[in-house]
This record gives sequence, C-alpha cells and structure tokens, in this order.
Amino acid sequence: MSEPGGGGELLAGRVQERRSQIVLGIDPDPAKLWPGVVEASGVAATAAAAVAAHCLALIEAAGPACVAVKPQLACFERLGAPGREALGEVCEAARDAGLLVIADGKRGDIDVSAAAYAASLFGGFDTPYGHVAGLGADAATVNPYMGVDTLESFLSTSRPAGAGLFVLVRTSNPGAADFEDLPTGDGALWERIASAVDRLGQVSGGLSDVGAVVGATAPEHLDRARELMPTAVFLLPGVGAQGGDVEQLAPAFAPGKAGGLVTASRSIAQAGQERGIDPAEGARAEAERLRELAWSLG
Amino acid sequence: MSEPGGGGELLAGRVQERRSQIVLGIDPDPAKLWPGVVEASGVAATAAAAVAAHCLALIEAAGPACVAVKPQLACFERLGAPGREALGEVCEAARDAGLLVIADGKRGDIDVSAAAYAASLFGGFDTPYGHVAGLGADAATVNPYMGVDTLESFLSTSRPAGAGLFVLVRTSNPGAADFEDLPTGDGALWERIASAVDRLGQVSGGLSDVGAVVGATAPEHLDRARELMPTAVFLLPGVGAQGGDVEQLAPAFAPGKAGGLVTASRSIAQAGQERGIDPAEGARAEAERLRELAWSLG
Repeated sequence: MSEPGGGGELLAGRVQERRSQIVLGIDPDPAKLWPGVVEASGVAATAAAAVAAHCLALIEAAGPACVAVKPQLACFERLGAPGREALGEVCEAARDAGLLVIADGKRGDIDVSAAAYAASLFGGFDTPYGHVAGLGADAATVNPYMGVDTLESFLSTSRPAGAGLFVLVRTSNPGAADFEDLPTGDGALWERIASAVDRLGQVSGGLSDVGAVVGATAPEHLDRARELMPTAVFLLPGVGAQGGDVEQLAPAFAPGKAGGLVTASRSIAQAGQERGIDPAEGARAEAERLRELAWSLG
Repeated sequence: MSEPGGGGELLAGRVQERRSQIVLGIDPDPAKLWPGVVEASGVAATAAAAVAAHCLALIEAAGPACVAVKPQLACFERLGAPGREALGEVCEAARDAGLLVIADGKRGDIDVSAAAYAASLFGGFDTPYGHVAGLGADAATVNPYMGVDTLESFLSTSRPAGAGLFVLVRTSNPGAADFEDLPTGDGALWERIASAVDRLGQVSGGLSDVGAVVGATAPEHLDRARELMPTAVFLLPGVGAQGGDVEQLAPAFAPGKAGGLVTASRSIAQAGQERGIDPAEGARAEAERLRELAWSLG
C-alpha cells in the first residue's frame, strides 16, 4: 500500500534506502518456472499456485538487489480468477520484502472506467456490500492514446492514494516507430505526450508523480525525453532480453538516482538457466550485477 | 466461444438472425444495481455476486433486442478475483442467450504480453498444469498506441480462435482530440491508425475481422473513417448517456447492416429509473427502441 507523501518523494527515499534503481519484472510463464520450486512449495499443482510459488522464490532471490517489482498483469490474467489471487499474493510478498509495486497493465479508458481500473490497481473500492481490496500498487503503467482526460481520470484516484503513474511515451518494441514517432508539426507524437506528462505531474522530492515509459532500446530518445520531462521518473524497459544496454541510460538519471528505473524480467529470471547454475543464484547475481552497474551511472 | 468461419461472417450472420445491431454495454456499478434483483436471486450478498445477478437480469431483459454484449472489464476487475468469476458467468449467460461477447478491455502490449491477454480474452491457455479457460469472447477492444506489431500479436491469437478485434481509432471522449486528432503530415493520427486497421483485416462475408472503435459523438468523422476502412465493422460507443445521436450514424452501415454496431450501456440499464418504471421493463423498451431505430438506418 502506498504511503502518505507518496509519488516522487516515496520513490526517491526508497531508491536511496535500497541503493537500487532496478525493477524486477515479473512475467511468469507456467511452462518456464524454476525447476524444483513448485514441488518444494508443497502447494497444489494448479497453474496459478505454481506461478505464485515461482514468483515468491524469484522475489526472495532477486528482490534484495531491487527497489520495486513490476508484475505484468497479462501473465496473471491468463490464469483466470486464481491468477488474480496469485497476483495479490505476489504483490503482498513484494511489499513485505520492502519493494515497491508497479502494476504493469497499460490500461487506458474514459472517466468512470479509468476510475474503476484505478480502484482495482490502487486502494480498492467501497461498495454497499463492503470494501473490496485493490492491489495496493505504488504505481501503474497507463496508455495515453485516448487523451489527457483519460490520464486525469487515473490521477484522480492514484494521487489521493499516494501512488504514481507511468505513461507510455516511447516504448521499446520494434513497432513503436509506427505511430509514436509520427511527426505532428510540433515534434513527434511521443514528444507531445511527453509534454503532457510533464504538465500533469506534481513534483515532490524533485520528482514528479507522473513518470514515463521510455524504452532502453532507443537511447537516442533519452536526452530529448529528459528535456521535455525534467522531473519525470523514467521506467526503462528493454534491458537484457530485448537488447538494450544499461550503460547508455545515463541521461535518465539527470534528476537524481531515482530518475531512472531499469526494468529487467527474463534476463534476471532466466540467468541461472543461461549460466547453467541454480536459478535463484543466477537471478540474485544478475540482479546484483545490474544494480551495481546502474548505481554507478546514476 | 467463437465459431469456425468467425470474424466478419459470423457477425453478419448473427446481425441478420437477430435483426439487431445493438450492443448491450455492461458496466455494472455495485451502488446502482437494479432494486430487488439481488434479493430475488438468493445469492450471498457479496459485491461480485450482486453484480452478476444484476447483469444476468439485464441480459434477460435487454438481450433479445441486441446482437452482442460488451462487458467493461474494469468494472469486474475492481471486484478482485470474484469479479473475474462474475465476468465469466456473465459472458456465459450472454452466449446462452445467443449473444456475441465483445470484451472491452482496451488492452495493448508487446508480443508475449499481447498473446497472454489474448489467451485470457479468447480461447484460454495450455499449461503443464492443465488448460486454463479463457473468457471465450468473440471480439475484444485493443489500443494501437504501441504500434502495428502489438496489434499483430493480438491477431495471432484472436484469428485462429475465430475472434475479431476492435482497434481504438477515434474515440468518443472529450479528450480524444488531444492526440488522436493530431496532424501527421498525411492525415490525423487516427486516420493513420484507420489505414493500418484496413491493412490488417481479413475479409469474410464482406466484413473485416479487424474493426474500429469510432465514437458516435463525432459523426463528422464517420464518412472519412468509412472511406479509409471500407470493410471494417465500426463499434460505435457514445450513444445515449454520452450524447451521441443514433440517426447520425448512417455512414457506418455502408458495407451492410453489420457494418455498424451501436453500443449503449447506461441509457439502457437506467432507462426504467429515468422513466419511473420497472428497470427490466425500461431496459427492454429502450433496447428495442434503439434496435428499431438503427435497423431502419442500416
């Protein structure tokens, strides 16, 4: 659950405390769970229970080198209602380990629907039948396509909960150029969105509560993104498995160490397998390697 | 569950069979359920169970005048894991009533994540622990911001399942102009996306399996949208509560009656309340009024 005085201040404090800017991406595939973990957990062998056991082991191994986890909601949604239970369990384990939670769902919708998503992601929802708990995330990724009013609808719920948003600005996939890079007469589309991100944010501790997803695979955009969003926290996917290089990310850290959060998922979870060692040991070592590298840059 | 020979052909057949182009939007708010329905259902009074009972009554009342339902996933997600169960129950009831299911989640993500969302929305997911059922939707709304590759990732799962997509093109909210209408040197952003929608679709029965969300609140865009997407099915939100006028939608129906699907949510669910009559009777009458009006246009 988010803390009072959340947003940028919360994040900056947590980054200093943990000496880490690494975000552990949690994208579990039931066919690629760590061998042994499911059996050792003693849980009933349903896909959702197995996924939860795997994620808890991953958090235990790699969490100490990280400042946050970023569960990919799609990976839990495909497991149905038990997947939602598993997601709640994973978020709780992360919080118990002192990690922030960034819910990666890339939602975007109009007024009441955006508020409903935000209730689900953050503080929950009061009904005549009682309170329904939300995920208690500290931040969530959102999609800006439908306009500033849709982002404001998210903010109207996230901000009172002390939580932040990360708006998709310039993403790390090959097709990102199709629309995000289109010229608009006053910069590329993603630059217009970056300006909106800058306008929407409230700054505390030198950092805005509205951050931006800026792919680590396109480091040529980072300088410009920083110029347009001087106080935004950049969530930087694409390191590792997607081919981005953490050493090129230095501009992200201009407003301070917490100005750039480096996310890595498969490169951490599968490091043991790739090196032929124990998966937990591999994940721990790779997360720590990334932590040291990013810390030396920012 | 979608049928073989799905996409445009399935939809066109169903529209003729039911003589309706009306899509019943299902956006349940636990504080605004039909009085009496929850008590009469005899279910335990949890928010999710109450919502499910309400939705089933709504489908029973308004469904006969409709061709499809469009559950707003946010409204179910905010109810946690029981909300996912309720959503499954509502989709099943709609199918049993002969209605198609359009899952309104506006998802958008890269490769594996898009495929995970698609598994969740359509045919489900095989795991080493057994098959996990999907929602079995016949179509879903998706967000194009991240690029054509992200839409293709959805298609790679939806198309084999015989299901369709509705890509957000020009939405009905006031902020839609912020980014969707930006000039790109070769039309507005939404027009570029419309062209991509046209290229991505496979046509059967005269209709593409990749449709477009085009807001009924901006009828001035309909002619141009139809020019750019001659075979796309238009999902037309914004009628009723959002201020759109069904009589201005005629261009949507150029490729045939199934070329335009008129969605209405609150204007149907709350019709009884507004007219001071029984909610089910009000919903039935309003859905039938919209059905007759749209059918006369298309």
